[in-house]
Amino acid sequence: MFPKNCWYVAAHAHEVTASLFARTLLNQAVIFWRTPDGAIAALEDRCPHRLVPLSTGKTVNGLVECGYHGLRFDAEGACAFVPGQDQTPKNVNVKKFPVAERHALVWIWMGEASLADEDLIPDMHWMDAPGWRATTGYLHFNADYRLVNDNLLDLSHETYIHKHTIGNDAVADAPVVTEVIDDRVVRAHREMPNIDPPPFFALAQGHDGRINRWQIAIYMAPGFNMTEVGFHAVGTDRVDDHLMMRPIHLITPETDHTSHYIWGLARNFRLDDDELHENIYTSTQQTFSEDRELLEMQDCRLQEEGMPKLPQMAVKVDKAPVTGRRLLDAMIQRETADPSYCAVPALLADDGIVTQPFAQAAE
Amino acid sequence: MFPKNCWYVAAHAHEVTASLFARTLLNQAVIFWRTPDGAIAALEDRCPHRLVPLSTGKTVNGLVECGYHGLRFDAEGACAFVPGQDQTPKNVNVKKFPVAERHALVWIWMGEASLADEDLIPDMHWMDAPGWRATTGYLHFNADYRLVNDNLLDLSHETYIHKHTIGNDAVADAPVVTEVIDDRVVRAHREMPNIDPPPFFALAQGHDGRINRWQIAIYMAPGFNMTEVGFHAVGTDRVDDHLMMRPIHLITPETDHTSHYIWGLARNFRLDDDELHENIYTSTQQTFSEDRELLEMQDCRLQEEGMPKLPQMAVKVDKAPVTGRRLLDAMIQRETADPSYCAVPALLADDGIVTQPFAQAAE
Amino acid sequence: MFPKNCWYVAAHAHEVTASLFARTLLNQAVIFWRTPDGAIAALEDRCPHRLVPLSTGKTVNGLVECGYHGLRFDAEGACAFVPGQDQTPKNVNVKKFPVAERHALVWIWMGEASLADEDLIPDMHWMDAPGWRATTGYLHFNADYRLVNDNLLDLSHETYIHKHTIGNDAVADAPVVTEVIDDRVVRAHREMPNIDPPPFFALAQGHDGRINRWQIAIYMAPGFNMTEVGFHAVGTDRVDDHLMMRPIHLITPETDHTSHYIWGLARNFRLDDDELHENIYTSTQQTFSEDRELLEMQDCRLQEEGMPKLPQMAVKVDKAPVTGRRLLDAMIQRETADPSYCAVPALLADDGIVTQPFAQAAE
Repeated sequence: MFPKNCWYVAAHAHEVTASLFARTLLNQAVIFWRTPDGAIAALEDRCPHRLVPLSTGKTVNGLVECGYHGLRFDAEGACAFVPGQDQTPKNVNVKKFPVAERHALVWIWMGEASLADEDLIPDMHWMDAPGWRATTGYLHFNADYRLVNDNLLDLSHETYIHKHTIGNDAVADAPVVTEVIDDRVVRAHREMPNIDPPPFFALAQGHDGRINRWQIAIYMAPGFNMTEVGFHAVGTDRVDDHLMMRPIHLITPETDHTSHYIWGLARNFRLDDDELHENIYTSTQQTFSEDRELLEMQDCRLQEEGMPKLPQMAVKVDKAPVTGRRLLDAMIQRETADPSYCAVPALLADDGIVTQPFAQAAE
Repeated sequence: MFPKNCWYVAAHAHEVTASLFARTLLNQAVIFWRTPDGAIAALEDRCPHRLVPLSTGKTVNGLVECGYHGLRFDAEGACAFVPGQDQTPKNVNVKKFPVAERHALVWIWMGEASLADEDLIPDMHWMDAPGWRATTGYLHFNADYRLVNDNLLDLSHETYIHKHTIGNDAVADAPVVTEVIDDRVVRAHREMPNIDPPPFFALAQGHDGRINRWQIAIYMAPGFNMTEVGFHAVGTDRVDDHLMMRPIHLITPETDHTSHYIWGLARNFRLDDDELHENIYTSTQQTFSEDRELLEMQDCRLQEEGMPKLPQMAVKVDKAPVTGRRLLDAMIQRETADPSYCAVPALLADDGIVTQPFAQAAE
Repeated sequence: MFPKNCWYVAAHAHEVTASLFARTLLNQAVIFWRTPDGAIAALEDRCPHRLVPLSTGKTVNGLVECGYHGLRFDAEGACAFVPGQDQTPKNVNVKKFPVAERHALVWIWMGEASLADEDLIPDMHWMDAPGWRATTGYLHFNADYRLVNDNLLDLSHETYIHKHTIGNDAVADAPVVTEVIDDRVVRAHREMPNIDPPPFFALAQGHDGRINRWQIAIYMAPGFNMTEVGFHAVGTDRVDDHLMMRPIHLITPETDHTSHYIWGLARNFRLDDDELHENIYTSTQQTFSEDRELLEMQDCRLQEEGMPKLPQMAVKVDKAPVTGRRLLDAMIQRETADPSYCAVPALLADDGIVTQPFAQAAE
């Protein structure tokens, strides 16, 4: 269902503090906390004594203390204290996971720990780089993370699921160019010249004049998605006058049929506009909740039908999601064949280039 | 569990409009809607593209449009439109079900479609015939539809389940005559001369003077039930002065352990009395909710015990329900042996005859 | 999972009245009621006719009447009345369970009925003996009863689970002496001289001066637990000036993973103080609810992991619970080997002796 030898996003960095933060990832319950030096610790959320979750407890001086009998464990998972006795058992450790903090995100490596190399963390610099401001949020989906990826690679769903915010007929009607980059990344590119702005875009540009819009869905296995959403008012210059947003969708499996949807929506304009920031948060949570409702129904039906292969009929919009699944399946197969295999991430996008209009890109 | 080559009641006719109406029947999710000419369409509630329910969407110009990618299907189940492409796939159809509208009800044929013959629709004319007025309603039961049939064929339960509305000791004490008609219908007839009226009857006749009451439970497999409830004040004439109600209980399996209880309570008196109409609605929903509470507990226990055969001890009141089960089982067995077998419905009751008192009927 | 040939506590005596009282015990649904002479009857909560729970009905003249068809059964389980017929079937009986009322508790024997001997009822006289007053309560735990026993035999959990009421660091730090008495009972004894009183003890003595405290956890299989909680103000006499409470925890399996927690907290001081009585009720329900929250999480995790043996690492506090499990397992094994085996209960505690301080007891 998912590769293990790669970094996953576990949380936004601000979610992990000196107190315990519990989250299940890839079917494993994990607790996170920061030790006094600010470093992040991640242990299996399971006391090795009587198997209650360590998250029943609290942190004490940088150690985690179980809520049942008060056993304490350090960031390495070693038992540091047992109430009522002087000695601590040396041979019983809580499983520790490699973690890293980068791009305002907490990353975790759920596979073979000795392979965890921070150079393999994908570039998500838009989350905290100068010149960008990211609004962030989180949703829990009762759906297989692969269905979420499929949905993000197929932006034509906007017209139907998101008709009240970011979709309109222009989206579904525009042709799509799909390409695979470096055998790692799928890009689906669509230009929508001279269209009426859907509600969210009218909000972002401050008026409802017609726009030239483009949209690129970018996917890298297992669950890294970035949508490039750019537009400029008709009659203005694409390079100089465009506004651009990069919704970043970090989809991490919680279990086989539930997912964490950790998102940031980075923009390169009106950086100090806190009202826009609030509006983006509210409308984005709303938009992704619309996806959630549909994808949860889909997951439910697929389970009832014994998880048949999708899609079941050929439609043009499926080219990108089908390609994305192929890359993901290949990644899983390689890891199965070679347990030391780790996929090297590719660059999702280059800030220096504003994507060329579709007519040229299609040449 | 249930025969398939027969008409089932899917809904009241007024429930199906130009908008989508979703209901699961015999373990199959179905959507209904009316096309611009008023005809009813019924398709499997499943988009053949990515298997989400079509009921996530809406109707557009008489077509159903999926809520995910906007694929549209016509009343025959053919794909009529795919956004972003000129051609539509010809070989992928949504399953279509034969439907009919009669007696203010929507009928559906879930079995072999080529056998669907509207002449096989049972007569339920009391739902909309002149001289009758039917109050209608719907309840969802978390119980095997056969348990609901059993309960309806054994009216002695009224004394215990419905002691606040239609039952009293006179019901349980009265002897029952059970007969099978045309090898298709079970009738259980009970006379209760000179009794105090239970609360609902006092309401219907407008005073609490003693009554001569009769009660006939009629069942035709798989789930057609009609109760004839008649009475006249003691000292008045049975033929000229009686009041009669025909509660019609249309029990359609939703799944193996859940049922649709679609009901109409037709009466031949005070047709224009809207207050009585409201009272009938409220008290009938209440009465059937009392059955629901008990039957859901029963279904739960039967599942825990591995669905043993009922009854487990011989009691006189079981004659009618046991006979009803025998007819249902025979219908299922015939269909299993001969997939082209379709049971021909019988007449449930004849309006021209007011049932003779029990003394005569028992002769 | 549990022995059957022994008395279990089914309820507090005041819970069983002339009306029906339903409770599932050892995976069997049972109804209790009092017949007109005040005796307690207990039958399987299942009508032998159509298998609905008899608890759907009510009692009528000391008989139980099913809520579906009104069949009536007497305290022996014999059918006493069937509506609409003169004869009652003689060969269909509802299963009857031996019951007894003692120590303000209702006791039930779920095993082989011929072995039920009231001399085998454990002594719980503190529930209603002169010189004692018991505050009583009930909680339902979604946890294996054995986990509740484990928890009660290991009082060091107080420091962590009950830090707001009865626990503090002194509890976890004190050494424990564990002993087995008569091969039937486990006692874990802990002395805490000259400590600050946890909140509940300050309440009980009326001030927050330092105390000498002792604590004894007593367990007898399968689910009888008594905690002796004694203390006296520092500088006063242990024998003359102590206050003592005996929380009695009667843990009866409902199913394999749910339990009844029937409790009484008996005290030998301020017997007429109703405000204290109320405070004990409120704080004890709160305290046991804290245990419940943790044990339910533990049970959940153990089920996920396939019920591994506990504990998984050696800690001193486990000596008493591990010993308790050994006695319980031995009891189950003896009954399995010899279906006529019934364990003889031992005396849990002797009121005449105030436990000696730990220094002496440990000699």
